[in-house]
Amino acid sequence: MILGIDIGATWTRVVLSKENGEFVKRERFRTTTDPVGTALDVAKGWDYDSVGVGSIGPLDLRQGTVVGSANAPSKVFSIADPLLKTGKPFYIANDCVSGVWGEHVYRWRDVRNMVYITISTGIGAGAIVDDNLLLGKDGNAHEVGYVVLDLSSGISCCGGIGYWEGIASGGHMVDAFNVMIQKWGVEPKEKPAQAADIFRLASEGDKAAEKFIDYWLDVNAAGLVTVAVSYDPELVVIGGSVALYNWGLFYDGVRDRMKKTIRIAEPRIEKAAFGDDEVAVGAVALVYEPPSSLKAFGYPRGGKTKA
Amino acid sequence: MILGIDIGATWTRVVLSKENGEFVKRERFRTTTDPVGTALDVAKGWDYDSVGVGSIGPLDLRQGTVVGSANAPSKVFSIADPLLKTGKPFYIANDCVSGVWGEHVYRWRDVRNMVYITISTGIGAGAIVDDNLLLGKDGNAHEVGYVVLDLSSGISCCGGIGYWEGIASGGHMVDAFNVMIQKWGVEPKEKPAQAADIFRLASEGDKAAEKFIDYWLDVNAAGLVTVAVSYDPELVVIGGSVALYNWGLFYDGVRDRMKKTIRIAEPRIEKAAFGDDEVAVGAVALVYEPPSSLKAFGYPRGGKTKA
Repeated sequence: MILGIDIGATWTRVVLSKENGEFVKRERFRTTTDPVGTALDVAKGWDYDSVGVGSIGPLDLRQGTVVGSANAPSKVFSIADPLLKTGKPFYIANDCVSGVWGEHVYRWRDVRNMVYITISTGIGAGAIVDDNLLLGKDGNAHEVGYVVLDLSSGISCCGGIGYWEGIASGGHMVDAFNVMIQKWGVEPKEKPAQAADIFRLASEGDKAAEKFIDYWLDVNAAGLVTVAVSYDPELVVIGGSVALYNWGLFYDGVRDRMKKTIRIAEPRIEKAAFGDDEVAVGAVALVYEPPSSLKAFGYPRGGKTKA
Repeated sequence: MILGIDIGATWTRVVLSKENGEFVKRERFRTTTDPVGTALDVAKGWDYDSVGVGSIGPLDLRQGTVVGSANAPSKVFSIADPLLKTGKPFYIANDCVSGVWGEHVYRWRDVRNMVYITISTGIGAGAIVDDNLLLGKDGNAHEVGYVVLDLSSGISCCGGIGYWEGIASGGHMVDAFNVMIQKWGVEPKEKPAQAADIFRLASEGDKAAEKFIDYWLDVNAAGLVTVAVSYDPELVVIGGSVALYNWGLFYDGVRDRMKKTIRIAEPRIEKAAFGDDEVAVGAVALVYEPPSSLKAFGYPRGGKTKA
């Protein structure tokens, strides 16, 4: 059996899974300053042989640490250290890297070029190109929340201007909305407190919210074009609550805009399948079928895998 | 001996090379509607066993064709068809993919994660991630000229708004300059006819040109940040006349801006080494040391390689 851990900025999920990705137990807790330590406490007494972790980034994958997380209780913490104490073999990857690997292993086995993108509190991606799970020098070859999409927007977040995450993520949409309505000189009938309010206002015909949602679709389409020309995938799987709760709007709007501008053969767009379990499923998949690029980083660590 | 062909939008270069990348002969001609056919005519009587081609894109690498080139005399043409008639084995890749492969094989052998970017008439890149030369579903996993960097700029080119190439490439800087000075309400002391004029005006202290060059550096830094978070390279090699002719300005400006915003460990930036031969050297390298991802596309084609 495999222990899967999904470390998110807000929630950490712990699952006990069969090799086929079927969960036998599942728990979650509010992410602590030592989320892996807490997860191992939660899983005390569970019968597992090995561990897979999908974590928020950015990572130093060689060290097995999170370095400079934007939203978690600790900016810097070790994933590897608590795991080494278990004596069991483990694999670590970024959360969206785990996401794309789970979709690939359990759902899209024959697709050699695919990207998983989550549009949630933050924005991130995992990519498989030429049948290789992309990691890069430190395991961050997919931090697409920080691609620059709209330099002239004046919308700043996370140290930069016009980042995809700074404009279109659930965590930053309200700030972006406030910058843009001022620039456009429009006023909503009520001030949105969270991203969901903007979608509601737009659906009620509020002109300021409608204008922003139109811009939000432009930005997401630009993000998808950027991802498509960077990785040339045949398939893009979209997850994350902000996209999934507004799927019809998102899919139609982004698809139409992409078609009009993209200069290479456009990828197919599909909805992610595993809901809140996306990263945990991927963490299990890392153990079930270890990606070769992760082996190059010295994984598995912490113990021998079963022969 | 290896025949190397570099198909550019304006010039096509043909070289006869030893395996170590040393050229024995070289010719160039203005790109025709059938550049490979013309190149083979130019190389008539040359003594070569195999052929490597680095070409403008976008490509359909499986078919060996260029599909929808923005600037060449023919938008669509076959690379493979004329080569098949020679009976000699050949390899094809995008021009910047060849570029990164040449830099990797002949200069940066131990670097597992690197990107080559050209800032010239157009903008393009080639990327090696996890020691794999990225190709993607059709061989276009690097068409970074078409990443969206400034959606609100209103600068359109190539069917999209705010593309890197549409703003910062030599072929589009003057158009971008004209859009921006109108937006800013500034006037240059003279109208630039080409990109070089803008750099000259700025060096002479023209305020409009200075402001644009500042923006041009912002855009290039944003492009490098986008590339860095998408591929997580340890090294970015920069080529292309627009960057190389203005190297001090480019390097210092882009480096400073990147340092301030990037959220992952920043890559080292180096100047490309092979000048006008960059793509031809890479085309030769494709034959000398075929990348495994290219083999997956069925290359070499057209004949048996020497045992």
